[in-house]
Amino acid sequence: MVTLGHLRCALGAQYVLRTTARGCSTPSAHADARSEVRSNGDARSDGVVPRRAVVPGGRSPRLYVSKLFLSFGRSEPHDKLACKSQKLMLQNDVMDICHSGAYHLLPLGQRALEKLIRLIDWEMSTVGGQKISMVTIAPADMWRKTGRWESTGKEMFKLQDRHGMEFCLGPTHEELVTSIFASRCPLSYRRLPILLYQISRKFRDEIQPKHGLLRAREFEMKDMYSFHTDEASAMETYHSLCEAYSRIFDRLSVPYVKVRGSTGNIGGSLSHEFHYLAPVGEDKLLLCSHCGVQVNKEMADSVEKDCLNSGHDCQLQEVSGTEVGHCFYLGTKYSSVFNALFEMQLARSSELTHMGCFGLGVTRILQAGLEVLSSDSHLRWPSLLAPYQVCIIPQKEGFEAEIYAELADDLSDQLTQLPALHGEVVIDDRTQLSIGHRVYDALQIGYPYIVILGKKARGNPCIVEVQNTISGERNFLSRDQLWDLMSSVVTL
Amino acid sequence: MVTLGHLRCALGAQYVLRTTARGCSTPSAHADARSEVRSNGDARSDGVVPRRAVVPGGRSPRLYVSKLFLSFGRSEPHDKLACKSQKLMLQNDVMDICHSGAYHLLPLGQRALEKLIRLIDWEMSTVGGQKISMVTIAPADMWRKTGRWESTGKEMFKLQDRHGMEFCLGPTHEELVTSIFASRCPLSYRRLPILLYQISRKFRDEIQPKHGLLRAREFEMKDMYSFHTDEASAMETYHSLCEAYSRIFDRLSVPYVKVRGSTGNIGGSLSHEFHYLAPVGEDKLLLCSHCGVQVNKEMADSVEKDCLNSGHDCQLQEVSGTEVGHCFYLGTKYSSVFNALFEMQLARSSELTHMGCFGLGVTRILQAGLEVLSSDSHLRWPSLLAPYQVCIIPQKEGFEAEIYAELADDLSDQLTQLPALHGEVVIDDRTQLSIGHRVYDALQIGYPYIVILGKKARGNPCIVEVQNTISGERNFLSRDQLWDLMSSVVTL
Repeated sequence: MVTLGHLRCALGAQYVLRTTARGCSTPSAHADARSEVRSNGDARSDGVVPRRAVVPGGRSPRLYVSKLFLSFGRSEPHDKLACKSQKLMLQNDVMDICHSGAYHLLPLGQRALEKLIRLIDWEMSTVGGQKISMVTIAPADMWRKTGRWESTGKEMFKLQDRHGMEFCLGPTHEELVTSIFASRCPLSYRRLPILLYQISRKFRDEIQPKHGLLRAREFEMKDMYSFHTDEASAMETYHSLCEAYSRIFDRLSVPYVKVRGSTGNIGGSLSHEFHYLAPVGEDKLLLCSHCGVQVNKEMADSVEKDCLNSGHDCQLQEVSGTEVGHCFYLGTKYSSVFNALFEMQLARSSELTHMGCFGLGVTRILQAGLEVLSSDSHLRWPSLLAPYQVCIIPQKEGFEAEIYAELADDLSDQLTQLPALHGEVVIDDRTQLSIGHRVYDALQIGYPYIVILGKKARGNPCIVEVQNTISGERNFLSRDQLWDLMSSVVTL
Repeated sequence: MVTLGHLRCALGAQYVLRTTARGCSTPSAHADARSEVRSNGDARSDGVVPRRAVVPGGRSPRLYVSKLFLSFGRSEPHDKLACKSQKLMLQNDVMDICHSGAYHLLPLGQRALEKLIRLIDWEMSTVGGQKISMVTIAPADMWRKTGRWESTGKEMFKLQDRHGMEFCLGPTHEELVTSIFASRCPLSYRRLPILLYQISRKFRDEIQPKHGLLRAREFEMKDMYSFHTDEASAMETYHSLCEAYSRIFDRLSVPYVKVRGSTGNIGGSLSHEFHYLAPVGEDKLLLCSHCGVQVNKEMADSVEKDCLNSGHDCQLQEVSGTEVGHCFYLGTKYSSVFNALFEMQLARSSELTHMGCFGLGVTRILQAGLEVLSSDSHLRWPSLLAPYQVCIIPQKEGFEAEIYAELADDLSDQLTQLPALHGEVVIDDRTQLSIGHRVYDALQIGYPYIVILGKKARGNPCIVEVQNTISGERNFLSRDQLWDLMSSVVTL
């Protein structure tokens, strides 16, 4: 005998049980299901990734696909694009193009972006970063002081205000942050190091914008600037930032490499780059698996010899990379221009601060991750960044449409009681379409989990079909097994 | 006999107790302490304000004032400013000026901003809002279509890219959002209403920027745009947005008024404004407490008569307001230009969508709230937005400096186990300064709670002095009382 609300009651009881006695027996399938999730790399091994909180009693609103601002496979205008991720993001309303190199993020893209920002904020706070927002419209005179007004050339968007004053749209903020710091100088040596960062819109008038957010004219960047008493302190922070970046990329579970890079227009004497490897990447990297050399090809002259002379059976392999993170040791390049001083311990004299600078291409991480993970036709998100974790697909409409609709609502209400799934479950209520049609759409969007409420969902025991789109596994799970699987999902 | 870690153990035990048995007896003082907090207006009466989550086991890092990027009372350059909040925000490193009308948010300001954004996001999601990010550099041709390229005049920052294409820095986004919507049209009537919003940097080349973030050239705004099948649906959303705005302002506990406003350059036929009342406000509002008329003076012609003819003993009072929120019914003003259509239910024909638009001046809410609440010398935050909730001030340095330092660390570790206080407790470790000096600084910054560890903190029972800077109350509390008080603090 099938009862309405069967699923709800069962899951409700299960929920109470779990929160009071975690150790109750679970079918062996549960362990498998959980290890699946873990193997997606979103496991929180150190237990310190934060998630936005959910207040008990605040029910997660039900989210219906028909009400979301998303299309499915709007393919026509984008088929000629060379870049897979760009095409998929446009087709599936992750983003929309406004003009050459400038993209709107639509709800799916915005949700992924905010998850990534939460992850970055967390890691920046663990290394002592303090978040700020600097102005976008940066005065020309500051850039003239460092000579970068001229050297940056046409890549800067320049403009004048109504009084004829000259400005640029900040492509990076060394000048501004150093002048902020310098206006409070000299600070006591005791107060350093100080690490300031922002996550904000940056602008570059690329001569040839391409590949969507990979080379855009507007993009989100995390830029941190550090201030130190000496090189040793700067290097300590440099290494802790490299580690923080590695933790971020590890958690995103997209393969990456860290290479020595050139310092370019930013300046300074040491830099490391983090790259996602994909054919569309514009950087050429040289990697040697024997002696461990990993460099940007720009640095080849100084390094190739070392590798080949290392005595190992070396062979540099060339791969294409997209730079997603960059650490620089700047020395006193900027502090000397703006006279950014600190007060020394013993003497009453002041010295120039040493600086570091640490960038993450936030929107680039989003798209480059999708470029690496996706198939030609389906988006695949780093599971931590998936805009929604679960899509519930009830039976196609028929004489029992209301029963399945209620089952779907109940299941959504129950799953979203898990703090990690609050706001993460959508119901594909387009029941005029077949289950197969909606599964196809769901695979395109790339929800990590698709839960299908077919006829067995009304059986006793209630059985649902669950597809893990990341591992490719399909399983028929009881309500207990589903609950256990979903309890393992980690979100930001 | 005083033992080290005394406070830690006691609080630790208390913590365990509370989480397993909430109903244990509490001294009567606790009830008073809790009602104090509630009266600050930050109580979460409906239990649905979210907070960023804290994962159990993720210890909140200890935050020392000496390491924070903040000064105390840098008074010299700002004494001539007319606007109290602007002066206090500059003096206390909430923000920093870059150039006329353009301000950096420093860590205190950024923390407050992000709390406000979380509150707004929550309320927007409850009314079905979907968050996006539109581009900053908006193509001139879209603005020419609506005639606003010319009509907005010099308030727009205009620029060209390297190819000579013309753009403006978006001061608002009706054109862009309508064109995004229109490119997917006609959507089925079933999918409407759709509510899209963003929280982003906006730009206006004010002829006379003044009062800091109240009339700035760069500022953060929340702008939502709604799409409807008809006027009735648009009005329903209009009213639900007015209610959402009221909930936001209620929670911030800064007195506000809602008035009929003019539609100005945005267009449309109905608008309501939300204002904070303060002498620096640039709008003149007419309020009548008898007949309830509340209008912007711009609308006086049409309304004054109604009020005076209402038969009541009416008298319009004129007050100064700062606009912090604005709701517009736009009708088809923009959808007709961009041909934003929906597919009707019965016929196979399409009709123009009706639109609404709903703004919140995010950085303006921050500063205008401080303008209303602060004294001439001390910042007072809406408690939900205070950058940090608690400042712990240990004894001045002396032969027992280490003991007090450890007490402060322990207390911080314990309090930050409360999810609401994770990341919200700072220790003023500048123990070379007297307690009085540091209390003065703390009052300037406006932490809602100052906890002083004087000699009694080493007594048995351990007693600390707690100042509630919002109510002005000072109490000596036992560890149990402190814990109970702090358990009532609500943060975002």
